[in-house]
Amino acid sequence: MARPEASPLLLNPSIVEQILTGFIAEETRRAGLKRAVVGLSGGVDSALVACLARKALGRSGVVALMMPHRLSAPSSLKDARDLARRLGVRTEHHDITPMVEAYFAGDPRADRVRRGNKMARERMSILYDRSRVHEALVLGTSNKTEMLLGYSTIHGDLASSINPIGDLYKTQVWQMAEHMKVPARIRRKVPTADLWPRQTDEQELGFEYREIDQLLFLLVDERASRREAIEAGWPRGMVDRALRLMARSQYKRRLPLIAKISQRTVGVDFRYPRDWGT
Amino acid sequence: MARPEASPLLLNPSIVEQILTGFIAEETRRAGLKRAVVGLSGGVDSALVACLARKALGRSGVVALMMPHRLSAPSSLKDARDLARRLGVRTEHHDITPMVEAYFAGDPRADRVRRGNKMARERMSILYDRSRVHEALVLGTSNKTEMLLGYSTIHGDLASSINPIGDLYKTQVWQMAEHMKVPARIRRKVPTADLWPRQTDEQELGFEYREIDQLLFLLVDERASRREAIEAGWPRGMVDRALRLMARSQYKRRLPLIAKISQRTVGVDFRYPRDWGT
Repeated sequence: MARPEASPLLLNPSIVEQILTGFIAEETRRAGLKRAVVGLSGGVDSALVACLARKALGRSGVVALMMPHRLSAPSSLKDARDLARRLGVRTEHHDITPMVEAYFAGDPRADRVRRGNKMARERMSILYDRSRVHEALVLGTSNKTEMLLGYSTIHGDLASSINPIGDLYKTQVWQMAEHMKVPARIRRKVPTADLWPRQTDEQELGFEYREIDQLLFLLVDERASRREAIEAGWPRGMVDRALRLMARSQYKRRLPLIAKISQRTVGVDFRYPRDWGT
Repeated sequence: MARPEASPLLLNPSIVEQILTGFIAEETRRAGLKRAVVGLSGGVDSALVACLARKALGRSGVVALMMPHRLSAPSSLKDARDLARRLGVRTEHHDITPMVEAYFAGDPRADRVRRGNKMARERMSILYDRSRVHEALVLGTSNKTEMLLGYSTIHGDLASSINPIGDLYKTQVWQMAEHMKVPARIRRKVPTADLWPRQTDEQELGFEYREIDQLLFLLVDERASRREAIEAGWPRGMVDRALRLMARSQYKRRLPLIAKISQRTVGVDFRYPRDWGT
């Protein structure tokens, strides 16, 4: 069922590279800026974004932030550093442990999901602060698979000024990462949010990326119904779980809902592109 | 020019109360929840939201979070506590100083705007964490004036699940606050983000709310052009400044921009209301 070789998910990597580097360059220019900041985790998503940004904005146009926590795998930091060195971009190091621990000092029994969310939001907060200092955009690193399934923290890793890879499924990120020469060490590691030891995406999601990406493509991009997906041979339980995760996480992909009182409401009928009026 | 008595901004407060309490009750129910958390700053916006939520969800349906910083005015905390006591709702106290200071320990020369943004995002992070613990929605407290002018922190005070007052101009917040019996002490204080001593909104914005609300209503709700506003007697400099602030802050009122690659992109052509599929 899942045959990536023959898959409609296969990209033309040269064209996509052109679109994505053009997007980064153009949106940075439109914002009146020359630089972007990106959080480098040691994973493939942020590595791909860094490579694209390096190509779009040049060496001096990218600042890579390493924001490890005490519980992050040490190899993650090393991989991130090695990549930044290879790209020749400026780096900063911000250990998030003191801020996160200061908060949970009053609540030591907090579970790991709460801790993971706190970590993701602390990183967002640092990225935005440093973007102000560097007069830079914040680059998003969420891929389409995790956004659709809600495997991400609202106002945490989901937050960014622009996201070059938000329309790429995870398997497409892998394809592009190979094309952009992201080191194999990073491309081949088991996907993880790295929020606690031995966490892996696929275990938490209950799906393998190579399969779920095909199903999501069918449901979202090809607009197949639940019934059509099941008739096409996808297990009923998997289809229902994917649909449930998508519906449940809808709130993460939209703006705050504002009670409508007037003729023109922010986010409803007052809504302009970024460069309106400039 | 600014005559609030005769203004189109004047609301029918009983009807608006009904709409807003209905909105809070309905959206909480739709999310499958019974409670909401709100950050009470001691200012009129969050006080109004707390009163509306208390009415919509009852005493047990509201958790009020006090999140002072070392630099917050002590009277703010007192006013917030008094209001919560009066409403009979549960409160929590989270001092944000340790987390904010832990971050700026490495950068003691950070200016007050950066510190203010950090504080706003720390509060967001706590509100979302506590909303998980209490199985509650996060109530937004940004009004329409500050949202349009960009006088707010993205992924900070702008972040919420639902915002009952996001379509009310500041002067309308005052009107509703009186109707909802928010204590005069809170209603009559000089508006401030309370991020540093002696900060006031109107000084920072360069506008008085009673004037700018009228101008924004003309430009946004009545869709007047720059020229029409000037012809109506508004000072050219004020019109230009308002338009510039609105254009510049547009990025705060939208989702991250995702590079479009596929037929259906999150936030572009994959966009559903909160309750899609549930």
